[in-house]
Amino acid sequence: MNSDHKKYNDLGLGVKASAGRYRILNKDGSFNVQMTNLPFKERVNFFHYLVSVSWPRFFGLLLLSYFVINILFALFYFLVGVEYLTGIEGSHEFEHFLGAFFFSAQTLTTLGYGRVAPIGLITNSIAATESMIGLLLFALATGMLYGRFSKPTAKIKYSSNAVIAPYQNINGFMFRLLNPHKNQLLEVEANISLSWLKDNSEMRDFFQLDLERNSVIFLTSAWTVVHPITQESPMYGVTDDILRKKDAEFIITIKAFDESSAQLVYSRTSYKANEVRWGEKFAYIIDHSAVGLSIDASRLGESYQADLNL
Amino acid sequence: MNSDHKKYNDLGLGVKASAGRYRILNKDGSFNVQMTNLPFKERVNFFHYLVSVSWPRFFGLLLLSYFVINILFALFYFLVGVEYLTGIEGSHEFEHFLGAFFFSAQTLTTLGYGRVAPIGLITNSIAATESMIGLLLFALATGMLYGRFSKPTAKIKYSSNAVIAPYQNINGFMFRLLNPHKNQLLEVEANISLSWLKDNSEMRDFFQLDLERNSVIFLTSAWTVVHPITQESPMYGVTDDILRKKDAEFIITIKAFDESSAQLVYSRTSYKANEVRWGEKFAYIIDHSAVGLSIDASRLGESYQADLNL
Amino acid sequence: MNSDHKKYNDLGLGVKASAGRYRILNKDGSFNVQMTNLPFKERVNFFHYLVSVSWPRFFGLLLLSYFVINILFALFYFLVGVEYLTGIEGSHEFEHFLGAFFFSAQTLTTLGYGRVAPIGLITNSIAATESMIGLLLFALATGMLYGRFSKPTAKIKYSSNAVIAPYQNINGFMFRLLNPHKNQLLEVEANISLSWLKDNSEMRDFFQLDLERNSVIFLTSAWTVVHPITQESPMYGVTDDILRKKDAEFIITIKAFDESSAQLVYSRTSYKANEVRWGEKFAYIIDHSAVGLSIDASRLGESYQADLNL
Amino acid sequence: MNSDHKKYNDLGLGVKASAGRYRILNKDGSFNVQMTNLPFKERVNFFHYLVSVSWPRFFGLLLLSYFVINILFALFYFLVGVEYLTGIEGSHEFEHFLGAFFFSAQTLTTLGYGRVAPIGLITNSIAATESMIGLLLFALATGMLYGRFSKPTAKIKYSSNAVIAPYQNINGFMFRLLNPHKNQLLEVEANISLSWLKDNSEMRDFFQLDLERNSVIFLTSAWTVVHPITQESPMYGVTDDILRKKDAEFIITIKAFDESSAQLVYSRTSYKANEVRWGEKFAYIIDHSAVGLSIDASRLGESYQADLNL
Repeated sequence: MNSDHKKYNDLGLGVKASAGRYRILNKDGSFNVQMTNLPFKERVNFFHYLVSVSWPRFFGLLLLSYFVINILFALFYFLVGVEYLTGIEGSHEFEHFLGAFFFSAQTLTTLGYGRVAPIGLITNSIAATESMIGLLLFALATGMLYGRFSKPTAKIKYSSNAVIAPYQNINGFMFRLLNPHKNQLLEVEANISLSWLKDNSEMRDFFQLDLERNSVIFLTSAWTVVHPITQESPMYGVTDDILRKKDAEFIITIKAFDESSAQLVYSRTSYKANEVRWGEKFAYIIDHSAVGLSIDASRLGESYQADLNL
Repeated sequence: MNSDHKKYNDLGLGVKASAGRYRILNKDGSFNVQMTNLPFKERVNFFHYLVSVSWPRFFGLLLLSYFVINILFALFYFLVGVEYLTGIEGSHEFEHFLGAFFFSAQTLTTLGYGRVAPIGLITNSIAATESMIGLLLFALATGMLYGRFSKPTAKIKYSSNAVIAPYQNINGFMFRLLNPHKNQLLEVEANISLSWLKDNSEMRDFFQLDLERNSVIFLTSAWTVVHPITQESPMYGVTDDILRKKDAEFIITIKAFDESSAQLVYSRTSYKANEVRWGEKFAYIIDHSAVGLSIDASRLGESYQADLNL
Repeated sequence: MNSDHKKYNDLGLGVKASAGRYRILNKDGSFNVQMTNLPFKERVNFFHYLVSVSWPRFFGLLLLSYFVINILFALFYFLVGVEYLTGIEGSHEFEHFLGAFFFSAQTLTTLGYGRVAPIGLITNSIAATESMIGLLLFALATGMLYGRFSKPTAKIKYSSNAVIAPYQNINGFMFRLLNPHKNQLLEVEANISLSWLKDNSEMRDFFQLDLERNSVIFLTSAWTVVHPITQESPMYGVTDDILRKKDAEFIITIKAFDESSAQLVYSRTSYKANEVRWGEKFAYIIDHSAVGLSIDASRLGESYQADLNL
Repeated sequence: MNSDHKKYNDLGLGVKASAGRYRILNKDGSFNVQMTNLPFKERVNFFHYLVSVSWPRFFGLLLLSYFVINILFALFYFLVGVEYLTGIEGSHEFEHFLGAFFFSAQTLTTLGYGRVAPIGLITNSIAATESMIGLLLFALATGMLYGRFSKPTAKIKYSSNAVIAPYQNINGFMFRLLNPHKNQLLEVEANISLSWLKDNSEMRDFFQLDLERNSVIFLTSAWTVVHPITQESPMYGVTDDILRKKDAEFIITIKAFDESSAQLVYSRTSYKANEVRWGEKFAYIIDHSAVGLSIDASRLGESYQADLNL
């Protein structure tokens, strides 16, 4: 590979930065890179956090906020005096507080049964403020729920392993992918970068691997991405042992246009040396009848033995 | 056609995958490809489903959820005891349940008339939870309604048939399209792929057809897309009979920028051999006066006989 | 101009379609093209209509719907019987109907004062349905309001006239534009198409005019777009009289990236022959001090006499 | 630099416009350009203002509107007569007005306790209108909150100073940047424009500086953008003194694809002559262990002395 390719392909990690033995990219496409010593307000993006946090945590935070805000307002009503809330039940202080708490919940959600209702300037003012805050908070929750749901993510499914298989009269590095969802992915582009340690060094080299085909118009079926191991390939003459010794990592980037969200989406994964099967070929998983094609997605990673060309 | 074109143009279906006689692309642009054996959670995208499901089904699901959730909460209130709901009507158990059901509806929608209102810790807690859930559910519905409505789809109208018509001193494969909506489509690009069976084989060949013009800046009028059948065209020397015998399919892809949604949109359709009229020409459907042009959209597919060049 | 340019530049209107004397593009960027005989459901996009209709009409429609829906539900409650609404005022039938109408409004908006409240199965069911419909309708209104407000439109301001001014040692066709809003427009591209009648014909020719500069990185100031009238220009040797006789129209297209909405935006306008001032130059409207530049937007179209080069 | 570059790189400010000594671009990426004499309705974009105004001001405006609208409606109710509001407290006029005010708040937020409720045609009509307006206003607030939160902004962090450091066997102009947030920035492109005063003139020249590398696929780490000062560079032979005398400004533009919002984002900054440190090199701030890389963001701008090549 020429140096131009290398330059483009150190992925912006920098030559020094890429030294050492570790996994650059996790299977799920996240990077093993951390930022430290960032000021809190530069690091944290509240909305982005709430949009990307897991569902249980998201709902947990919602419930907690709901509870805490009601406790807070209940305290306000309680301190002003429950005599300014008509219809409050019980005689015990705690019962009064509970009454104020549920009145607060009815106000925050703009439910407003009215069995308990505010009288007097202060209690009325707090209630008017609370109902407005309630609407804004639920406006926020609406936005975040929409943000969570509408977020386009090309949930591309990759074969669990890559293979080195015979390809025409040479061999090729191959992996396979498909789009499990109903939304069409269009103008799908693939990119393979190979990273490994230089000989007798802890520094890493980066190569962009040439592909048999860089893009497909539609990703309706399973696509086998192939890097033909020609004499120009850095993989030429390399064996399984060498790949493992050099701590090789094949970094995969997929870029596509997601028709349903009308947005560009990216997907990433990587194959380490031990995730490459030598002398295997992907199984044929497409069935075709008079009405069309049918692809067995569960067999995406299935491969069988096949003699390599020398 | 050279092999480069072919490679790009098997549409990502793969050479083997494209064997056999069937329609690759339906008239509405959907593919005759199915994924099988996908785990449920990889296959299903709840939001995407609710955004793309038909309107009657969408509203049916909304109503059903509303009903089921209210039944559920009514059950909770009922089991805790209707004595914790003030103002509940009737003496019969079923009347009590109905009362709890309607109270639940008033709580879920944050209506809260208050004629029936909760008392006691447990009933109040359920009501506070229900009103919050209600707000979140309607937040979700808001997002989905917006998602449904704002989804850009280039609803391009295609001529029902393609024609082989005289073009300059040769002939051409032609179809016609227009944008029935008021939103402008800009930088509109057309692409025609021809797929047919190889001679004496059940394998398919793919060709990208060269166009007289690949794009227009605006799609304000009807656009006749033309593939001139030159000596370089795979259609050169082909007859209606050959086209049918080879189970030919012309796969049309349109890409445009939709000005009103500020997004890229794609549209697809296909013409099978039996949807191509030989020796016909599209009728002239544009009227122009002093104030501008007027296009008769109902005559988009209209054609009349025209002698082909030899 | 070579024929390639012409082909690209009949704007997708078609050669025949572009015959005759009329304005192709209005000053506000809309086209003088109409579609007729379209089936209703293909032509109408409800959401798109409500998002692009004028504000008074939008609010008029909202109010009207609100009124009509309440009348409808009031009728339901009235027909079931006002005895199923507690606290209804008056003894006259019309007073009862009014009571039902306001109860409906309180239910549709989920206000639910509860002074008037439903009893009995049927009235309760109607109310439960109405409150749900209310939430969905306001969810819809939320989406449409957001759609209306977030719609990016490059509200570019153009000089009211174009000029033919001296340019270096030749002359040039020039117009000027600026972005009145605070949002930055980036990577701004300009395109001028000239359309005029062929000699002794009612058919139109289209030319793409070469520009001194096709794009600017930022549109922070006023940009004078210049077509130098070189010997290669179709404008070479043309006079004001010829331009008017040929019913010339300069069609302007601007494409930019709107930073605040992160979307591509397009803007269009046109100058007819009578909107071109010959032998005038745009006035200098930029003021610069130690703190930066200041542009007098009200003088965008201002020009003064300047002798043309021969 | 050739004149093509210059033309492209006067940033659309115009040659004349760029005369004088001032900062073109502020550190935060905003321009020192103002539009004057714009008609109010052309200049103001209400939604854009509310989406980009600071949070305290945003909430201040919300609260103020809430207060003013309630005062207004309270006035209506008060003028019609508090006898048309059941359950209003107090005997004093001001108490009545307060009661009307809180009733208005309960109506605008669709809280509707019902302790105070409207009777009679006029008061009921006002309340029905107010609750509808309330829903629309909060719909608007929802949209604006979503607009504020979902706005993608590449909050790129730049080194506070640029440096002139040894680069291979020559020197280079360098600055450093990183993305402090968790969202991935992909296909990141950098651009440096140099603006300075012509010799013995108050007119400015603009140059686009060639970069060692124009783009990186990912911005996971800190990226040092380098302009090598070759013999072709306008910086060749320039000293710190010359830079200051020519009032030089390095204008930085970064363009990237923000994966989390699926949108293109731009970031800008500039370095004036006094923000360039001569003969310094950026410190190495990357730590790598077995699990990945760790970058000390607080040291982004840290540099140490380094002898320049001659």
